[in-house]
This record gives sequence, structure tokens and C-alpha cells, in this order.
Amino acid sequence: MFTFSLTKTGTGTAGRLCRIATSHGPVSTPVFMPVGTQATVKTLSPADLEDIGAEIILANTYHLFLRPGHGLIREFGGLHRFMGWDRPVLTDSGGFQVFSLAELRKVTDEGVTFQSPLDGGAKHVITPELAVEIQEALGADIIMAFDECIPYPATKDYARESMDRTHRWAARCRQAKKDTGQALFGIVQGGMYTDLRERSAGTLVDIGFDGYAIGGLSVGETKPLMYEMIEATVPHLPADRPRYLMGVGTPEDLMEGVDRGIDMFDCVMPTRNARNGTFFTSFGKLVIRNSRYERDRDPIDPACRCYTCRTFSRAYLRHLFNAGEVLALRLGTIHNLSFYVGLMRDIRLSIAEDRFPEFKRAFLAKREATET
Amino acid sequence: MFTFSLTKTGTGTAGRLCRIATSHGPVSTPVFMPVGTQATVKTLSPADLEDIGAEIILANTYHLFLRPGHGLIREFGGLHRFMGWDRPVLTDSGGFQVFSLAELRKVTDEGVTFQSPLDGGAKHVITPELAVEIQEALGADIIMAFDECIPYPATKDYARESMDRTHRWAARCRQAKKDTGQALFGIVQGGMYTDLRERSAGTLVDIGFDGYAIGGLSVGETKPLMYEMIEATVPHLPADRPRYLMGVGTPEDLMEGVDRGIDMFDCVMPTRNARNGTFFTSFGKLVIRNSRYERDRDPIDPACRCYTCRTFSRAYLRHLFNAGEVLALRLGTIHNLSFYVGLMRDIRLSIAEDRFPEFKRAFLAKREATET
Repeated sequence: MFTFSLTKTGTGTAGRLCRIATSHGPVSTPVFMPVGTQATVKTLSPADLEDIGAEIILANTYHLFLRPGHGLIREFGGLHRFMGWDRPVLTDSGGFQVFSLAELRKVTDEGVTFQSPLDGGAKHVITPELAVEIQEALGADIIMAFDECIPYPATKDYARESMDRTHRWAARCRQAKKDTGQALFGIVQGGMYTDLRERSAGTLVDIGFDGYAIGGLSVGETKPLMYEMIEATVPHLPADRPRYLMGVGTPEDLMEGVDRGIDMFDCVMPTRNARNGTFFTSFGKLVIRNSRYERDRDPIDPACRCYTCRTFSRAYLRHLFNAGEVLALRLGTIHNLSFYVGLMRDIRLSIAEDRFPEFKRAFLAKREATET
Repeated sequence: MFTFSLTKTGTGTAGRLCRIATSHGPVSTPVFMPVGTQATVKTLSPADLEDIGAEIILANTYHLFLRPGHGLIREFGGLHRFMGWDRPVLTDSGGFQVFSLAELRKVTDEGVTFQSPLDGGAKHVITPELAVEIQEALGADIIMAFDECIPYPATKDYARESMDRTHRWAARCRQAKKDTGQALFGIVQGGMYTDLRERSAGTLVDIGFDGYAIGGLSVGETKPLMYEMIEATVPHLPADRPRYLMGVGTPEDLMEGVDRGIDMFDCVMPTRNARNGTFFTSFGKLVIRNSRYERDRDPIDPACRCYTCRTFSRAYLRHLFNAGEVLALRLGTIHNLSFYVGLMRDIRLSIAEDRFPEFKRAFLAKREATET
């Protein structure tokens, strides 16, 4: 089951409020999806994620295919049951990870051959059909078409050739997909070329998907270039389908993405930064190992109501990081994800109350003024 | 504030039920104290510990003296506030850790000089007076006299000489202690010599402490020898003071210790084993990485009601350990500590109901039959 309904069109912005319904419950967009690569959002239990208010998480097909294997997860009734998370899940197609294995892969029109970095270099082939089959076994509510994610910079010829292959793969994914009740999203590619992006959106819409993602961004390009690609794509996507900007990004990126009509985001930034001791706050980033926090009694962010900020001082968190204590990683992750989830809640409220442009302006101004 | 009252003397056992009252709440004994070395029970938040039902935890003076420093913790109002734990805390004296630094230390009657492994080998001296001062700054409800913990085996001459020094240090700790409302426990030493143990107990009782610990056991000796040392000591300790067996041990050790009149235990075994994927269960140990659990849908222990066992399969936990996921460490720790805390609760109930001997017999028989 998958339905998408537009609740409200924003005022003075392309940002909008929508509601996704899945058999594992609803998702209100714009939404940020925490990344749970190996069937766990690193350091957190499902109960932690519910406390934080996460409505949907992402898991990585590539990693779960290699370990523990999609067959095992299917036997357990799918990812939700396997990991004890009963809210919606989205799986990526594995494309992004496979293409990151620069040295280990070979791309043909059929699919991608690669050596696993895990099992002593065993050879695997992922085709569009297999990517769909794996994701059907994993049982996510939303699954993604298999795509090629190209490096930046790339020549226009290479970007076009790769994009055309991604389109052929998208059609094969659409064809291969069984009637599982899962939603299938297509992925717009086209490098940093606005005309390719436009053509990619049009081609995918012609094939017809339940939602559309924008892939291949946040790969090293400048922010203005990223925003330009989003602007070149969104107008060519149907208003009655969700739009998902993959692998993005900073709080500022989320704000700019929403403003340009994006409904869904995912990124490892809040979770990975948390484990490095870098926290997102209402006044910019905070690096907890900084000696200025040695005797600081304040919580990470006095404006935050997460478990970490309700309970612990910066000094204690700094001590945990310096002492290499595992608890530090979880407490930091709880805070950073609470910040992201809270930001999306605030964004939704500001759209609902027709004041998103002011909200965005104030948010960016405050961070510019205090970012250290 | 510290009071100790005997609630019930066991039937057919030296085991007994007692109640400790502190300004951070009560403790029912026999009790197991999870080890929170660096002001955190590794991987767990205070909320986790409360869920598990831990009534008191232990923290290590040596580690906290070196990092973040007892001065800082005093500024924060003590360990309880610093780490967000408002139930009782016991701190050890640092002796055990300092004496583990075999290469780095020099012992004189004054105290111990050692090089810190942390701050580039800075030299520190810990005297009995300083050990008390540090523990007063940390603010634990129960603090320990500074003692020398000798290796095993040790000659009787060495054991006697060291024990006599420990007695002189104990008297100095007693003398140095301010009127802070903290309880001060003395530590019985004497190696593996019953006459020394008896003499040590007598000497410490003459000095007079709020409670008595048995130190220097579980250092490599056989189980029968350990039990012999406990039996040589307990009869010489006053019935109206708590008896604490330091650094012990396995579930079987707890059972045998209680049976011999021990009220308090601490050990890194449940927490350290959990992080290695070795779990304690009602049917013996379970090594989660074993391939037999690859597709196992059962919880770690079907008889356990902890969060981990209520929520996750062995197969999922095995996957988390194999994938190196941090969540595995916490979920395993929640289970192992729940097992230890639950075991002590069952032991107390069996003493209350005058059936400890049968309970012990059945527990040991079951584990012998199923231990793998």
C-alpha cells in the first residue's frame, strides 16, 4: 500500500505539505529519513528512533545483500521484523554503493559486476532485476530503481551515456517489479547539465513511477550548482508524486531543498557527525572536544528537548568522547537526529502557517551570525 | 547518610537479606553492582540502568582521577550529577588499578608513585589520604580504603608484609576521612593464607569501618581456594555491617558468595562479556557469533524479559555483532546486566522464602546440564 496526497501548497515557496500512507503507517513531508545502513541506524535502538520522532528510515540494499543476505531477511518476514522497527522503511537500490567501489566494478548494459570487500573478494553481479528482487525480499515500503551515480566532474558525453543507461535500467526495474504493494521510485540523473536533468525527469515520468528521486547530487559540486540542478528538475516532475533528494544534506541544504519543492531527504551527516562529536544546534555546529566545553554545564543546545540535552552537560559529553566511551556515540546521535527531525517539524509548521519564507530567512541569518 | 539493617537471616545458608539506606536511596542486598569505570556503565545511559533495575553502581577512582579529574567532578556537585545517575554509587580506592600498572609504579609506606598511561607519563603519587580526598570529591555514597592488591601466587612473607601495609593505610584512611556522610569500607587482604585473612579481618574490625570488603580474590586462584578464603574471613566480620566481595564474579560465584554470607558484589564480567557477544542465560553461556544462531528466531534467553529479549532475535543480534554495529554492544549489555540483576532478585526472594539451598542446587544443576 502506498498513497501520496498533497495537503497544502506553500505560500512564497515551492515547499509543500504532503502525506504518504504506507502499510507501516503514515509519513508527513517534508521529511528527513535517518540512514540505517546495516538494518540499524548506527548506535540507536528502534525505541530511540521512536522517541526522537523519526517517521521513516532508510536502509542500504547493497550492504544487506552482502550481509546478512536478503534471503535471510525475507525468511524473517522482511526488514521491519528483522530489526524490530514497525514504521515505514525505504531501501536504496545499491547503485550508489556499487559505483563507489571504483576499483572493483565493471559496468555493462546488463548490470554491474563487482568484488565484495567482505567475503574475500567473491564476485557478484547486480542487475536492475536483481536490485528489485533484493528490495522485494527486504520488504521496504518504498524501493528505488537501480541507477548509475556518476562522479563529479564528468563530461557531458559520459553523463548522457550513463543517464541513458540509467533510464533503460529504470524501465527494466519497472518491468521486473511484482505486485508487492511496495512503491517504486525512479531516479533522475544527468550530471550537472540542466538539459540532461530535464530530459531525465521527462523520460522517467513517461515510464511512470510512484515517486521520483534526484540522484547524483551532493557529490562535490558547489551549493549553487546543486540548487540549479534541483530547479532544473522539479518543474518536470508531477506535483502529485513525492520528490526525494538523495543523500542531502546540511540543515541549510534541507531548507533550500524544501524551498525548491523537495519532499524527502536522507543523509548520513547527522549520524556520522554525531559519532565524531560534531553536533548540530539552533546556533550552528558545536565541536564537543573543544577545550572550551571542559567545564561547561549547559546541554549541547539549551533550545533542544532531546534526552541528551535534558540529561547531560557538554562537560560530561566531552568527557565521554575523550574517554572513548560508546555511550557518547548514542547520546550524540540522539541529539543530532532530534535536531534534524525537529527542524523538519518546524519547516512543516511554517508552511502550514504560511510563513516558510520568513522562517527560512531567520534560520539562515541566525546560523550565519553564530556559526563558529 | 548510611545505615545498614539486617532484614532476615537465611535458613540453611549464611546468605541473608539486608537493607542499605543512603542519601541517594536504598539498596537491597545481596546486590550486584554494575561497573561504571569512567562515570558510565559502558554503552548504557542512566535510563537504561534504571530500566534494568540496577540499584547501585560502582565507579573507578583511578580512572576518574586521571580523567576528567576529581576537581572537575566536584565542581559539578559530584559523580551523581555529573553522570546523571541519582541512585547510590560506590567508588573503589584506585588501589587495584594502580597495582595493575606493574611496570609503572613504586610502592613505599607513604603511598604509590606511578606514571599515568594517559598524559604522556606524568608522575602521580596516591597516598591513603589522597585516595580519600579524591573519593570525597567524587561524592560516592560508599568509598573504599586504599589497599594493596597482591598478585597470585605470592609468598606468605610478601602477603603478610603487604597486608600489614594495607592495615596501616586503612587506619590512615579512617583518620583522613571527613564528616561527609559517606560510608567508608575497609578491605581485608592476606593473599591465599587463611590465618592472614583472619588476622586482617580482626585488625580492620578493630579500626572500625562502616562495611568490610574482601579484596585480592578472583586473581587466578582456583574456585575452592577462593571459597576457602571467603569462609576464613566472613566469620570474623561483624554481622551488623555489609560484606562486599570485590571483583567477583560468574553467576555461580555470586551464588556461592551469597551462600557464604556475602552481601555485595561487583564485576566487569557481564558488561565485558556482553561487548564480546557472550551472553549469560538461564541455561548457561551463549556465544552469539556461533553460526548455529544465523537463522535463530528466538531471543537470547526466552526466559528473560529485558528490552533486548522482548524485541530482537538471536539472528539479528548475531548480524549486528558480525557487522560491527555499536548497537550490538548496548543490547548485549542490557541483557547481561538484566540477567545479573534478575539473578540477585531471585536469590533475595529465595532467601525471603527460606528456600535458598534448593534454589542454588537447582540453578547449578541446570547450568551444569546445559552449559555449552
